[in-house]
Amino acid sequence: MGNIHAERIDALRRMMLSKDWDAVIVTGSDPHSSEYPAARWKQVEWLSGFTGEAGDLLITLDHAGLWTDSRYFIQAVEQLDGTGIELHKARIPGEPDIPQWLERQFGSEGMVVVDGLCISAQAAEALPGNVISMPDLLGYLWQDRPPVPKTPVYTVETGMTRADKIASARRFLEDEGCDAILLTALDQIAWLLNVRASDIEFNPFVISYLLVDRHGARWYVEKDGEQDEQTCATFSILEADGIDILPYSDITYLAGEISGRLCTDPSTLNYTLYSNLLSMGVPLKKMKSPVDMWKAVKNPFEQECMRKIHIEDGAAMERFLFWLEKSLESGKRTDERDASEELDRIRSGIGGYKGNSFETISAYGPGAALPHYKTPSENAPELHPRGLYLCDSGGQYLSGTTDITRTVPLGPCSRLEMEDYTLVLRSHIDLARAVFPKGTPGCRIDALAREALWRSKRDFGHGTGHGVGFFLGVHEGPQDIRQNLNATPLVPGMVCSDEPGIYREGKHGVRHENLLICVEAGSNEFGSWLEFEPLTMCHFDTSAIIPELLGYEQALWLDAYNEKVYRTLSPLLPQEISEWLREKTRPVAGRKDRQGQS
Amino acid sequence: MGNIHAERIDALRRMMLSKDWDAVIVTGSDPHSSEYPAARWKQVEWLSGFTGEAGDLLITLDHAGLWTDSRYFIQAVEQLDGTGIELHKARIPGEPDIPQWLERQFGSEGMVVVDGLCISAQAAEALPGNVISMPDLLGYLWQDRPPVPKTPVYTVETGMTRADKIASARRFLEDEGCDAILLTALDQIAWLLNVRASDIEFNPFVISYLLVDRHGARWYVEKDGEQDEQTCATFSILEADGIDILPYSDITYLAGEISGRLCTDPSTLNYTLYSNLLSMGVPLKKMKSPVDMWKAVKNPFEQECMRKIHIEDGAAMERFLFWLEKSLESGKRTDERDASEELDRIRSGIGGYKGNSFETISAYGPGAALPHYKTPSENAPELHPRGLYLCDSGGQYLSGTTDITRTVPLGPCSRLEMEDYTLVLRSHIDLARAVFPKGTPGCRIDALAREALWRSKRDFGHGTGHGVGFFLGVHEGPQDIRQNLNATPLVPGMVCSDEPGIYREGKHGVRHENLLICVEAGSNEFGSWLEFEPLTMCHFDTSAIIPELLGYEQALWLDAYNEKVYRTLSPLLPQEISEWLREKTRPVAGRKDRQGQS
Repeated sequence: MGNIHAERIDALRRMMLSKDWDAVIVTGSDPHSSEYPAARWKQVEWLSGFTGEAGDLLITLDHAGLWTDSRYFIQAVEQLDGTGIELHKARIPGEPDIPQWLERQFGSEGMVVVDGLCISAQAAEALPGNVISMPDLLGYLWQDRPPVPKTPVYTVETGMTRADKIASARRFLEDEGCDAILLTALDQIAWLLNVRASDIEFNPFVISYLLVDRHGARWYVEKDGEQDEQTCATFSILEADGIDILPYSDITYLAGEISGRLCTDPSTLNYTLYSNLLSMGVPLKKMKSPVDMWKAVKNPFEQECMRKIHIEDGAAMERFLFWLEKSLESGKRTDERDASEELDRIRSGIGGYKGNSFETISAYGPGAALPHYKTPSENAPELHPRGLYLCDSGGQYLSGTTDITRTVPLGPCSRLEMEDYTLVLRSHIDLARAVFPKGTPGCRIDALAREALWRSKRDFGHGTGHGVGFFLGVHEGPQDIRQNLNATPLVPGMVCSDEPGIYREGKHGVRHENLLICVEAGSNEFGSWLEFEPLTMCHFDTSAIIPELLGYEQALWLDAYNEKVYRTLSPLLPQEISEWLREKTRPVAGRKDRQGQS
Repeated sequence: MGNIHAERIDALRRMMLSKDWDAVIVTGSDPHSSEYPAARWKQVEWLSGFTGEAGDLLITLDHAGLWTDSRYFIQAVEQLDGTGIELHKARIPGEPDIPQWLERQFGSEGMVVVDGLCISAQAAEALPGNVISMPDLLGYLWQDRPPVPKTPVYTVETGMTRADKIASARRFLEDEGCDAILLTALDQIAWLLNVRASDIEFNPFVISYLLVDRHGARWYVEKDGEQDEQTCATFSILEADGIDILPYSDITYLAGEISGRLCTDPSTLNYTLYSNLLSMGVPLKKMKSPVDMWKAVKNPFEQECMRKIHIEDGAAMERFLFWLEKSLESGKRTDERDASEELDRIRSGIGGYKGNSFETISAYGPGAALPHYKTPSENAPELHPRGLYLCDSGGQYLSGTTDITRTVPLGPCSRLEMEDYTLVLRSHIDLARAVFPKGTPGCRIDALAREALWRSKRDFGHGTGHGVGFFLGVHEGPQDIRQNLNATPLVPGMVCSDEPGIYREGKHGVRHENLLICVEAGSNEFGSWLEFEPLTMCHFDTSAIIPELLGYEQALWLDAYNEKVYRTLSPLLPQEISEWLREKTRPVAGRKDRQGQS
């Protein structure tokens, strides 16, 4: 056939034939249900060539399918060409998901094989038929498979000691009548132990498992303590705090070593480990891990750090936007890749910078219409002094995580570009200035950000906001602001993005994103109130705004925000950039008569 | 003791002692999970004296408690005085509900007795301990208990024949692989059979059960066919359509007569019937009844009727509002009860009027601060030409159901009254003019109605909107617009109320309510769109509006609505009232400069 992926699938099918398997499921995740797995667990990419961030494969003897969502339909069709793999549309009403497809094909009789390490207990239990777990299934075929990463581990300041965090976990065990809690999600482990590493690109996690019981704690981690000075020092610190360090692979023996009732979260516990615990008769209490919520609510130290690092990150953004404008004015050839490299260069000068928090999206014109556009490394599209350029980027710093999108008018814009630019900004502002009662989940205020778009029958297919960690994942739960009816309330101290958009295929894309922190807004006879404070400090360009579409109250908000950005950042900027920013942040509220629509 | 309710509880406790029961639960519902039961099933009122529309009693040997929600806290404290019954606050975070309270008291060991007819299978299964069902439990103590009502049954025109509706039910059975469906909810039965009666106050239902199988249908109904000419004729019509009529009490034999798999909805199936079916080994498919959704989506005939009856109902409202203003101007003593009686008198002149759809709330000043105020029959508060009067009322007509609230400034108002009046009107309008994507559930747009209030830190404790039937219940599911995360999408043809409010204890209350019908609003590259059309036709008074708080877009909506009301109703009104309405509907959008907040 010639296609390397088709050949790999053939090899897998030979294995299936010899073992009498009906179906093999290959997921795009790792043993910790990570959103972004390390190279070792990019098995979907290895088998199919598909590089999207969400996708699962189902292989039978006569069918091969990739399930992915609408963000990746176009990319999947291109990347699957010649592999014999068919695209199945996930999350589209009426389209079967993998369990439904299996049920229709094999009823409850199929021999369905999964790599039990790379599927959660919850997902595996939803499968019909006889589910067989084959840990590291693809290892038999994948000769040069990367090992489990072991980058240096270091400790971080977070305003709360690991001793205090472990004590919280023990109080939780007492309240729940459990003897131990097993943490499997990497961001929760990094949070609880105040440790970080670079095991996964953009995510400062340590690949590991953590067990906390009433008296001790055991950390199963893949590291050569003796060969790496930093890791060695870190391990000593943790051991002094009463944490036993064990090899990552020793998690296999966990079930035999537990006495009493174990609390664990089936949405991030892998199926192999779960089956192991079950077969050894360990009594399980399945529930959402409390660490998810503890981690999401930033403590005063983390809040202060996040405010400060956003000022530095914002100053870097202003330097970048200034450079961008001057580059285009100079007539020098500048493309999407040049821009993203310049931004990286500026950001890397900030103290405590530990890399980007995700891959920068630097997209001009039609590219920006793809919410998950990948800027080409070579021959990237050139920027011209007209239309809209979108840049979505963020940094990981010792003192916090940033995530910001600015859509920049590079020169004259069409009426449609200006309309979309203005309406999305109005949407962004409507959410940013929301006031809402304590206890409100994000799904109940998502419409506030969409109403300005809906009124002109425009919308966007992604969520409006995701949680953001403190030098942790740029996407984190348990809260979000989106369509799905997630009942988790917004709580003071939580950080959320606010990123509405409009995407017009083949034309342009607009997205405006700040991070917001949820704060108290007082109490009265009607209850207790919350609101947001923007963390992100970078001006919104006003040149493409149509004032009567923006609305007067929204214009007042924008003027106050831009003024605050100027006052906060100008002391950090060279005079030339500070003066430029002064011009960029001139108020818009008085720009036209205010009689129009609001 | 002297208190009649305390004596009744004592009698119940003697019965409990003799039978060794730990707890008895008495619910405020009937064998059909009706929101408003007939007198026979007002057992909570009989036992405790509490008359609120939601409340359950739990009696043990040393404790008696009433669980009700915040709407009825004040009323419950007053009515329970001297009974020995304690108020338990339902739906308040941290307060135990009945199952939790039982669990804490008796663990899983209690002998818990319920009247299995008056509790749903779903609710009974949530109880801890040994649950014993004693059908008609209180019948042993309640000597003069009212019988099952049997008011005359008649057929109605609904734009779809009962044969077609039964055929839909059979297609559903085929799709679901079931042999029969049991309907227990009274509005669903009335809808499917195109029949109505007056068995329950304000609700034109027939107390009955309905079984539809692949070939026939059996209606279990408490009627003296031979003694009531109208019912007799109705039965003949139904029998001609292949429906067998059986005595209501014959439902006891249902389990023995079913062959095959039965589809039933555990949220409205009573526990006695459910236990019966289980013990006879009838295979059950438990699911939401499809009839709930069919009923909620009005067909073109029903939509047309609803539009027309709302014009007549609106003209009645305008006559009433005119009368109210003139009464006060004349200086004649007028109280809340006079007003509600005048409104009844006017409404009863409309063709097809079958009574009110709920008890009219006619409330002046502080009374209006209670969302469920009961206007006293005697010595009702007098109206004065100042402040706010609130009237929430509706009619049942052969061609539809109405529900409207107007808050009327009777003269000069305080600044706070005007602010609240204006902000609630803005809230009402924000929801009424919403545009949203197909598939959106009501809970996702509830915040659109609250945002204008939230921004000034005001809110209200009830839902924003409930479904309304076509000459059926004034409250119906499955959709609503409220805080709870109900995933049912809004669908074209559904009717919903839009009734935000503000309530200030001891001062005043404001609520503005129209019924809205959900309609298509076209499709484009971003998807398919829906919006609302107001059904209710009655002007909103503009005298208490503060224009800069209302907003310019909202003022334009209001002017267009009031103008439409005038043009639609003036041909139906005497010249004097028509001229008065012309004045009442003068536009507000130009009234002040528009530069203020929008």
